[in-house]
Amino acid sequence: MRFEEAYSGNVFIKSGTDYGKADAVIYGMPMDWTVSWRPGSRFGPGRIREASIGLEEYSPYLDRELDDIRYFDAGDIPLPFGNAEKSLKLIGGFVRQLLSDGKIPAGMGGEHLVSLPAMQETAAKYPDLAIIHMDAHTDLRTEYEGEPLSHSTPIRKIAEQIGPHNVYSFGIRSGMKEEFDWARENGMHISKFDVLEPLKEILPTLAGRPVYVTIDIDVLDPAHAPGTGTVDCGGITSRELLASIHEIARSDVRVAGFDLVEVAPVFDPSEQTVNTASKLFREMLLGFVK
Amino acid sequence: MRFEEAYSGNVFIKSGTDYGKADAVIYGMPMDWTVSWRPGSRFGPGRIREASIGLEEYSPYLDRELDDIRYFDAGDIPLPFGNAEKSLKLIGGFVRQLLSDGKIPAGMGGEHLVSLPAMQETAAKYPDLAIIHMDAHTDLRTEYEGEPLSHSTPIRKIAEQIGPHNVYSFGIRSGMKEEFDWARENGMHISKFDVLEPLKEILPTLAGRPVYVTIDIDVLDPAHAPGTGTVDCGGITSRELLASIHEIARSDVRVAGFDLVEVAPVFDPSEQTVNTASKLFREMLLGFVK
Amino acid sequence: MRFEEAYSGNVFIKSGTDYGKADAVIYGMPMDWTVSWRPGSRFGPGRIREASIGLEEYSPYLDRELDDIRYFDAGDIPLPFGNAEKSLKLIGGFVRQLLSDGKIPAGMGGEHLVSLPAMQETAAKYPDLAIIHMDAHTDLRTEYEGEPLSHSTPIRKIAEQIGPHNVYSFGIRSGMKEEFDWARENGMHISKFDVLEPLKEILPTLAGRPVYVTIDIDVLDPAHAPGTGTVDCGGITSRELLASIHEIARSDVRVAGFDLVEVAPVFDPSEQTVNTASKLFREMLLGFVK
Amino acid sequence: MRFEEAYSGNVFIKSGTDYGKADAVIYGMPMDWTVSWRPGSRFGPGRIREASIGLEEYSPYLDRELDDIRYFDAGDIPLPFGNAEKSLKLIGGFVRQLLSDGKIPAGMGGEHLVSLPAMQETAAKYPDLAIIHMDAHTDLRTEYEGEPLSHSTPIRKIAEQIGPHNVYSFGIRSGMKEEFDWARENGMHISKFDVLEPLKEILPTLAGRPVYVTIDIDVLDPAHAPGTGTVDCGGITSRELLASIHEIARSDVRVAGFDLVEVAPVFDPSEQTVNTASKLFREMLLGFVK
Amino acid sequence: MRFEEAYSGNVFIKSGTDYGKADAVIYGMPMDWTVSWRPGSRFGPGRIREASIGLEEYSPYLDRELDDIRYFDAGDIPLPFGNAEKSLKLIGGFVRQLLSDGKIPAGMGGEHLVSLPAMQETAAKYPDLAIIHMDAHTDLRTEYEGEPLSHSTPIRKIAEQIGPHNVYSFGIRSGMKEEFDWARENGMHISKFDVLEPLKEILPTLAGRPVYVTIDIDVLDPAHAPGTGTVDCGGITSRELLASIHEIARSDVRVAGFDLVEVAPVFDPSEQTVNTASKLFREMLLGFVK
Amino acid sequence: MRFEEAYSGNVFIKSGTDYGKADAVIYGMPMDWTVSWRPGSRFGPGRIREASIGLEEYSPYLDRELDDIRYFDAGDIPLPFGNAEKSLKLIGGFVRQLLSDGKIPAGMGGEHLVSLPAMQETAAKYPDLAIIHMDAHTDLRTEYEGEPLSHSTPIRKIAEQIGPHNVYSFGIRSGMKEEFDWARENGMHISKFDVLEPLKEILPTLAGRPVYVTIDIDVLDPAHAPGTGTVDCGGITSRELLASIHEIARSDVRVAGFDLVEVAPVFDPSEQTVNTASKLFREMLLGFVK
Repeated sequence: MRFEEAYSGNVFIKSGTDYGKADAVIYGMPMDWTVSWRPGSRFGPGRIREASIGLEEYSPYLDRELDDIRYFDAGDIPLPFGNAEKSLKLIGGFVRQLLSDGKIPAGMGGEHLVSLPAMQETAAKYPDLAIIHMDAHTDLRTEYEGEPLSHSTPIRKIAEQIGPHNVYSFGIRSGMKEEFDWARENGMHISKFDVLEPLKEILPTLAGRPVYVTIDIDVLDPAHAPGTGTVDCGGITSRELLASIHEIARSDVRVAGFDLVEVAPVFDPSEQTVNTASKLFREMLLGFVK
Repeated sequence: MRFEEAYSGNVFIKSGTDYGKADAVIYGMPMDWTVSWRPGSRFGPGRIREASIGLEEYSPYLDRELDDIRYFDAGDIPLPFGNAEKSLKLIGGFVRQLLSDGKIPAGMGGEHLVSLPAMQETAAKYPDLAIIHMDAHTDLRTEYEGEPLSHSTPIRKIAEQIGPHNVYSFGIRSGMKEEFDWARENGMHISKFDVLEPLKEILPTLAGRPVYVTIDIDVLDPAHAPGTGTVDCGGITSRELLASIHEIARSDVRVAGFDLVEVAPVFDPSEQTVNTASKLFREMLLGFVK
Repeated sequence: MRFEEAYSGNVFIKSGTDYGKADAVIYGMPMDWTVSWRPGSRFGPGRIREASIGLEEYSPYLDRELDDIRYFDAGDIPLPFGNAEKSLKLIGGFVRQLLSDGKIPAGMGGEHLVSLPAMQETAAKYPDLAIIHMDAHTDLRTEYEGEPLSHSTPIRKIAEQIGPHNVYSFGIRSGMKEEFDWARENGMHISKFDVLEPLKEILPTLAGRPVYVTIDIDVLDPAHAPGTGTVDCGGITSRELLASIHEIARSDVRVAGFDLVEVAPVFDPSEQTVNTASKLFREMLLGFVK
Repeated sequence: MRFEEAYSGNVFIKSGTDYGKADAVIYGMPMDWTVSWRPGSRFGPGRIREASIGLEEYSPYLDRELDDIRYFDAGDIPLPFGNAEKSLKLIGGFVRQLLSDGKIPAGMGGEHLVSLPAMQETAAKYPDLAIIHMDAHTDLRTEYEGEPLSHSTPIRKIAEQIGPHNVYSFGIRSGMKEEFDWARENGMHISKFDVLEPLKEILPTLAGRPVYVTIDIDVLDPAHAPGTGTVDCGGITSRELLASIHEIARSDVRVAGFDLVEVAPVFDPSEQTVNTASKLFREMLLGFVK
Repeated sequence: MRFEEAYSGNVFIKSGTDYGKADAVIYGMPMDWTVSWRPGSRFGPGRIREASIGLEEYSPYLDRELDDIRYFDAGDIPLPFGNAEKSLKLIGGFVRQLLSDGKIPAGMGGEHLVSLPAMQETAAKYPDLAIIHMDAHTDLRTEYEGEPLSHSTPIRKIAEQIGPHNVYSFGIRSGMKEEFDWARENGMHISKFDVLEPLKEILPTLAGRPVYVTIDIDVLDPAHAPGTGTVDCGGITSRELLASIHEIARSDVRVAGFDLVEVAPVFDPSEQTVNTASKLFREMLLGFVK
Repeated sequence: MRFEEAYSGNVFIKSGTDYGKADAVIYGMPMDWTVSWRPGSRFGPGRIREASIGLEEYSPYLDRELDDIRYFDAGDIPLPFGNAEKSLKLIGGFVRQLLSDGKIPAGMGGEHLVSLPAMQETAAKYPDLAIIHMDAHTDLRTEYEGEPLSHSTPIRKIAEQIGPHNVYSFGIRSGMKEEFDWARENGMHISKFDVLEPLKEILPTLAGRPVYVTIDIDVLDPAHAPGTGTVDCGGITSRELLASIHEIARSDVRVAGFDLVEVAPVFDPSEQTVNTASKLFREMLLGFVK
């Protein structure tokens, strides 16, 4: 169960060495071939791991240490360059195995399309699954210039599988008119622009249910995450995103799987984006893995 | 046999091809030769156009699409390098022609001095014109180290032409003591540090009047717009600037002309500044061109 | 009312406006989805065009001006992100049309795999075609981690189509042992490390024949072209590459098609790579289009 | 025959030329050898001085000009590379001299450890000294991987010297559990995450007392200060930091010494961090030197 | 109480402090307003001085130390932004004063137009002056898009003043056909592409004469000097440029003045260009100032 | 024998997993605290490993594959930040162990001072050891501003231990006059500027002897290795350095240990330096480990 990493990095800091004892399993999905604008997120997982070495192991937000939880970093799944269909199958197969072994899948992208098979497999295990989606973009297209497998489509596809009313999007500030219309007409929740306040309202209604949390780093304002494929101004701060993660952690939902995607290091020579992603991932681990 | 390019653009996205049918005309002013600190804004208009290809055509803020309005991108006005006087004459002549043809001038800089002839020509057509100016700097000098044609002087010059009480500056956080004194003593409005709240108070008093909106990208905090000549911390967020544009769009003023200036791409390897400028310009088009 | 833009270009400098009158047709192929290392070459064609605005129109090497030849820039072919198979078909179809109209195809990549359909179509028209290939890499794999459509395979595929003895590679300094062995055993020419001297020996043997010239910018040493996906030290200088282009221009071969690929602007903040690519392309136009 | 340089500076703008007449003395401490993550802050003081040339001399926040106060920039203290112990002694000796001459020491780092001797000497002169510390990190370790002289330890060491109840930390968001525990158990004040609001509460309790203000630039969110060794998301804005400086300036404490540390220019190609540091330092001078 | 700074410099390393005793005087000309492509060279002189701090004081090429010669760094001449005419007058006046005081002017640009007044004044003093010019570009235009004061014109203007047969250009690889024609028809020497070998042939013919040496950093290949306004591939190496400077130093000409121009730091985040310029300038000082 | 890596990276490509079976052992020395100019080489080893993933496993220069040799990557030695003395002891102890186990030490720096203990231990084992040193700098100082443990001193110290006539430096182009004098007076070999040709002359005289090869990446011209602490123009090309490594590989010396130092990734956003270092290290492994 140990992949040879594709681009760099060893393991996320304090990763355990025994797959069997882990409650959560970290894995990278170095795929960026369906993006319509700037590629480069394939190097995200490796650099997030590299940056994790600079992290403190303790969270003053959650008053919890990485030693308090058990996780295993499995490395990056080797994916065939330029073949989206086969890549998604490989990711799906791996996540299915994790779920079957009772692990919480904890993915790092890669473009947002990699979240689709993880969400699909999690939904297959948990029929009452809800999706909490934080993003600048709706990702509700049915295709992008003729291609159904595109980074603009994963939320639409999972919504069609589990029912749009089970999908909750936050922070959205870009999309086609048709996408917003489709969401409204089909009972899917979209909070435009904001994350924390609407999340506080929604979470109690999901109490007791399993949720999959998928965060596209571009939900952050470009000031806070310039290293991503499609920067879009008017986003939230890293403080609001941290607080939103903590809000979920303290709520009564049960996180059945999660991921953080679209970190593209090359566009950020200051490396603040990978450092931020690394801290966000630490908080997700500490908050979501009980 | 001519493709719509995928990644390089010579016009702002969705620009019409018929000057005659356009309500607004976009034009670039690639001049940066009077700046006292970092030059480079001559490349602003070209890169803003390039970035516009990555934009959605729909604004979830204004619930409006680019197809709903009519504009024409005329390209960059060729300006003689290092000759400020002649450059301003060329810009003035072009804007006069646009106004005479009933178009709304929609300029992209270049340094802030390029706004001067556009404001002057618009004021010549509309005697009751008011200026809405968003900027980190007062730009109220009479000269800069002996040069009357400097990027530190345009607001002073237009204020002297149309009367200081018709000029409203927002977000100002840098200037000489003498500039602030002059404004106060001559009845010109300056809102220090903030934009949105004071704008909400001023706009009703301008109801029914024509206004020219000039935005220096450095009104944004450097976190949100590092790619500009003179970064100055303590600025507003891109959310506040977007909201301010929308506030004008929904008010009862009539926008007779507008511009966005001082985008200098070379200082921002992440390209967030040109992407942000591109989205701001989309919102200005959708909000100001009825 | 439309200016020739000053700093952003949608066509290569001095491109004609009439497809019918052109002897050569420039086109971009913004595809980078099969690369195994750093993607980003999709932005190559657009930035090469932008940089061309800074070029002189005269070549002191060839004593020839761009006004002396006739070419038309058709823009970038729209390609479906992440779908290599369909992309190659679209490129092939376009090049077939050009050849059928009697034009010389002059392509800009994109990753090296985009050269494959262009070479294939040119070979279909000219049965005695030879390939002149300058590159750091053999590109002779039959597949890359299971994928037959990969940027590591185009030279192998064209060699199998037209016969390995009709393919001449220069400057090669990286590849698998099996690739070098295959070339040697099958009569394909490989000049390791050098370009100019071996080219001088080969060209007379090709006199009178049609050739397709494909240049991967990474044949240059990283010092001369850092902005590419896979940098590989020990390469040639830009002087040697210019001289090699001029050597072909002055020889008795007939250039039936050519391309320049793998320019990935994001990895070179100095922009020297796009400027260099732009000058190389000018020299190819002036030298290859009679 | 000596010009005031236009774009390179060896002193902070408007520095006086007579040490004797100065109320405050600026000095750089170009040391970065004990940092555990990214070094580079040795170049901070030089680049902050360079950036100061682009500053206005007037503060619209404090309505005060640099001509209103008297300070002298003494340059950078030459420190022996890689020898922390000797470096601290040299800094301590210099600050002792300044205090003995009745000057306010105004230091620029360099890593945070350089603040230690300055704080120690100031405490030696003022027995009732309080420390106001703004930082992302606790800096309360007793050692770092065996080294007692580390950039993770200065606050612990000064707290042990003057008593933990005289140390007030603000904006803290990273540290070991043990550090937070030690602070709580020993009566040291730590405000997590925020600066301005808790500072407003604390300042009245310090009225009349001498304080040393030490600001680590990483108290700012990475969006506002990417150019530092250890970026840590979830920080405060530059507006909040400016307001905090002004709050101290307007309070009844007496600033006996201050510094700004951890500016590492190489990680910020946009140069916003040095520009921000330069403006912050101007406000500290205008606000703290009466 | 004033330290020799460690990392920021306002004078070139080892500059003397007494103008009167100096044989050569260094001065910066921070002007970049007539360039047609990328501005930014105004920051060249400041950063060359900063980089000089990292230089060794001894040249193993010339076996000479900076202590062996006497020079004085006068700082940057303050020039009015965007006003080329006035700037040239100020430079000319300063150089005239230097020559009148018996000093060798040693200028740092700034764009190449700044060399014009220095060459003109030197020619006024030495009627038999020859110009040695190293550059990628001819700089022989009479105007640029209507502007006679342009960075494309200085060599033409000095050639017209002192006679084209007294001007020797080396390394030229870009220009208009008309410029090369004019040079050939008027007896001006142009060595295309190369510097060292043709220089070796020319130097003996200039024995005993005063020469002004003007070096545009872009004579170097972009690999060796990416930080300049107009990069142009196919240039010489830094080894060839160093050897060329040494060739002049060892020849029988007398250097009456010299400069190094067009260093634009912002385009080179690696800072190799300013470091290279700094070493080149050291060798020019050691070789040309006897 | 497996260290937790300090900064990133896993292992150099194709590293074996069994220390016992390895002929050579790779180890990183992430120390940069005594450098006098730009620090950052502590991140060198991690990024060289990361870049190694993009390498081909076959060398067309040596016709050899990584599978043909046996080596083990032990990770980075954890070193105490800012404590040079202790760091050198830790390195020395590790290398002594390797030599005692019959391994060839293959180090990656880090600053050049880290080579000292490795050379010292190798000399302790092989009394007839010769040093082959490629560098831009002499590194022959006895101290740097009072510090005997400095990156400017390692060659002097090893020369004093094993006798200057056993030390051969190549490519040197910077140093104090005293350093060159000392070398000449004490019988140490220094080849100024060049590497390959003098190496060809020296190698036969060393036939049969054990040698330690230490390469400072700055022996390359900055064009070929901008990512290093002290760039110095006039250096050799990567082709010459590759050929020099191959020359040693084919000679009759026996390489008893080797290292590659001073790679500082942050100064090279194009990442060409780490890619080049990675290929150089592959060639050293293939050429030196028999």
